[in-house]
Amino acid sequence: MALIVQKYGGSSVADAEGIKRVAKRIVDTRRAGHDVVVAVSAMGDTTDELLDLAAQIAPIPAPRELDILLSAGERISMALLALAIHSMGYEARSYTGLQAGMVTDDRHGAARIVGVTPVRVRDALDEGAIVIVAGFQGFNPDTQDVTTLGRGGSDTTAVALASALDADVCEIYSDVDGIFTADPRVVPHARKLDAIGSEEMLELAANGAKVLYIRAVEFARRHGVLIHARSTFSSGPGTYVLSPGMTLPDTEGEAMEEPIVAGVATDLGQAKITIIGVPDVPGKAAEIFKIVAKSGANVDMIVQNVSAAATGRTDISFTLPKADATAALRALAAEQAEVGFESLVHDDQIGKLSVVGAGMRTHSGVSATLFEALSIAGINIEMISTSEIRISVVLRGDDLATAARVVHSAYGLDGEIEAVVHAGTGR
Amino acid sequence: MALIVQKYGGSSVADAEGIKRVAKRIVDTRRAGHDVVVAVSAMGDTTDELLDLAAQIAPIPAPRELDILLSAGERISMALLALAIHSMGYEARSYTGLQAGMVTDDRHGAARIVGVTPVRVRDALDEGAIVIVAGFQGFNPDTQDVTTLGRGGSDTTAVALASALDADVCEIYSDVDGIFTADPRVVPHARKLDAIGSEEMLELAANGAKVLYIRAVEFARRHGVLIHARSTFSSGPGTYVLSPGMTLPDTEGEAMEEPIVAGVATDLGQAKITIIGVPDVPGKAAEIFKIVAKSGANVDMIVQNVSAAATGRTDISFTLPKADATAALRALAAEQAEVGFESLVHDDQIGKLSVVGAGMRTHSGVSATLFEALSIAGINIEMISTSEIRISVVLRGDDLATAARVVHSAYGLDGEIEAVVHAGTGR
Repeated sequence: MALIVQKYGGSSVADAEGIKRVAKRIVDTRRAGHDVVVAVSAMGDTTDELLDLAAQIAPIPAPRELDILLSAGERISMALLALAIHSMGYEARSYTGLQAGMVTDDRHGAARIVGVTPVRVRDALDEGAIVIVAGFQGFNPDTQDVTTLGRGGSDTTAVALASALDADVCEIYSDVDGIFTADPRVVPHARKLDAIGSEEMLELAANGAKVLYIRAVEFARRHGVLIHARSTFSSGPGTYVLSPGMTLPDTEGEAMEEPIVAGVATDLGQAKITIIGVPDVPGKAAEIFKIVAKSGANVDMIVQNVSAAATGRTDISFTLPKADATAALRALAAEQAEVGFESLVHDDQIGKLSVVGAGMRTHSGVSATLFEALSIAGINIEMISTSEIRISVVLRGDDLATAARVVHSAYGLDGEIEAVVHAGTGR
Repeated sequence: MALIVQKYGGSSVADAEGIKRVAKRIVDTRRAGHDVVVAVSAMGDTTDELLDLAAQIAPIPAPRELDILLSAGERISMALLALAIHSMGYEARSYTGLQAGMVTDDRHGAARIVGVTPVRVRDALDEGAIVIVAGFQGFNPDTQDVTTLGRGGSDTTAVALASALDADVCEIYSDVDGIFTADPRVVPHARKLDAIGSEEMLELAANGAKVLYIRAVEFARRHGVLIHARSTFSSGPGTYVLSPGMTLPDTEGEAMEEPIVAGVATDLGQAKITIIGVPDVPGKAAEIFKIVAKSGANVDMIVQNVSAAATGRTDISFTLPKADATAALRALAAEQAEVGFESLVHDDQIGKLSVVGAGMRTHSGVSATLFEALSIAGINIEMISTSEIRISVVLRGDDLATAARVVHSAYGLDGEIEAVVHAGTGR
């Protein structure tokens, strides 16, 4: 008998049928003899609909009230899920973030969990009940007000509960079967991984993989929580995300051979800004990126060309999320005279491909394989950046899918059959 | 400067436009120099939609979870209303039933308020904020769980808050201008009353008038809360509901002349059951109405015919809400042999007309006027019942509108112009 925390996203509980299907999964887990605590997101598009309503009423919504509004979404889904479990003959109790002791700071809309005191959750488990907790929300003990955790909040709720309750595993359900060596919609021969290291998972998630949220994986890594990413639509195993020192369950601690490359991530959500004719004097890059940071943009890769000796000027390119590009361009244009650059070029037709693997630390030639595969396919590389366990390249967006397929194949990652793809994803 | 509690129903906040209109009214009240506390219902049909969802998922929903589900409705409307007020430049804070200290017993779905400790509401008022409180909900301190108050819950929330905060007035907004001498949709020449006694209001509400809920009026009467029933769509005064000892505001305590008849109520929501051939022996009526009560039916009027000496049997008729009739009929049929009656007749084509007025206590001839008016109109009376300040008659449902018009006229209640009628009503 284990204690299992499960998380179900909005697309899994989008309607009455979905809620009943999820309830059945939960009851099946209970029937198998386990204690179950569930973190659930708001139904389907509820959160977006509430945000739309708020926008119709207030152009800049007051943060405290917006959080109260949004927290209603999980209140509805958690109560319905508990009702569904009840009607299958099992005791279930739903708790809000406050009732479950999800203590956060007071940053409305992007609150951080500072502690979990799940007294009522433990009591309910002791009394034999299945516990449903509202994902995405907590409360600040000073103000006694509801807070929301922002993007990926429900995943984080689940991992934080698993940590506080010392659960055996935190199962994060979505509409995909687990973590793949690449996005199966881009690379049809992508393979599901049985397990992946949390460090590699973080690099994949940061570079375009959508199955798990970075915050939740970081929390799990820091607190030693075993994540199992699974599909709501299948009963087969998904992918375990292993933090340092963990081994794959049911393998009696047998060490896996670490693959050199765990996966290939693709990202079409970035844009590139090039600043042309920047005076090649010390401090100019700092000046520029201070301006960009103040605009709220999150800069990813940066490349500076070798200075042309004749002009004493250079070009600087950087990538950032497409949504941040307009603000960054405006901020830079406003300081053009001050900084002394010649012009700005905006390019939103790029794609980023990243190869991630912990084995890179000890194996040479990993980047050579990447460059050779792209060269054979006739694909031009525009920017390169690397971390200890990752190589990323920027290409034309149109080339990204082909690039992902040839690179995936070059690293020997191709499976024998095509992966099945479902639609939609949860919060 | 006064402290004003306002209540807005679901139809007043059914969409973004409605919420903005209500917010403007609240801000106007604040601008006039008053402190404002608002109790708000869920938007439009939200509660019914949530009940539908619950019914799809669980045929007999668990009461605790159903209350959590339903309480999400006011959470949404209160937050949106606070957002709207904020965007007009005024500080507003929304509080759930729990946060507002609305203490109830633990009867989920039909909880009774046992006390109000509005500490956070007072603090917010002291800090100059407009306070929005979720109507219809409270919490039980033993279980720390959310409860809902059942029908008329938001009106009761408002009156209970007004009592606990010692407010100057509790304004209950709906889509009608106030309390009328009759339903203006039935009697076009009905007049709006400036004031009505709480006792008469209770009789009117109990006999078909829909503007205020009985529970709220009872609470106001018991705790000396002045109710002002007003329209969301007009800025003119509505109707004050005066508890014993109160006088109409702005009249310097001048006593109003009490009308003999305050109003005429009509009700098409009742059915009549006649039990034929009941043995005329002591205890039979008690036996019958114990059976009916156990079926959950709420009996209104009862008439027993004079016994026919030849048979030793009599007929008993009673009225009850249409929705209760099937259960009552089943319960009686199951005990037919035991009770020994001959047959059951069900009639759902009746209408009830009630004439209400505190002046009846001291004036004779009130019932004669009623019977004469109906007689001239050729309308047959099937049942009669009276209280100290009310006479009710059961007629054919088809005759009800005509009856109401002639009776309204016979008591001299007709106004000179036709009343304006709006559609819809709130929770």
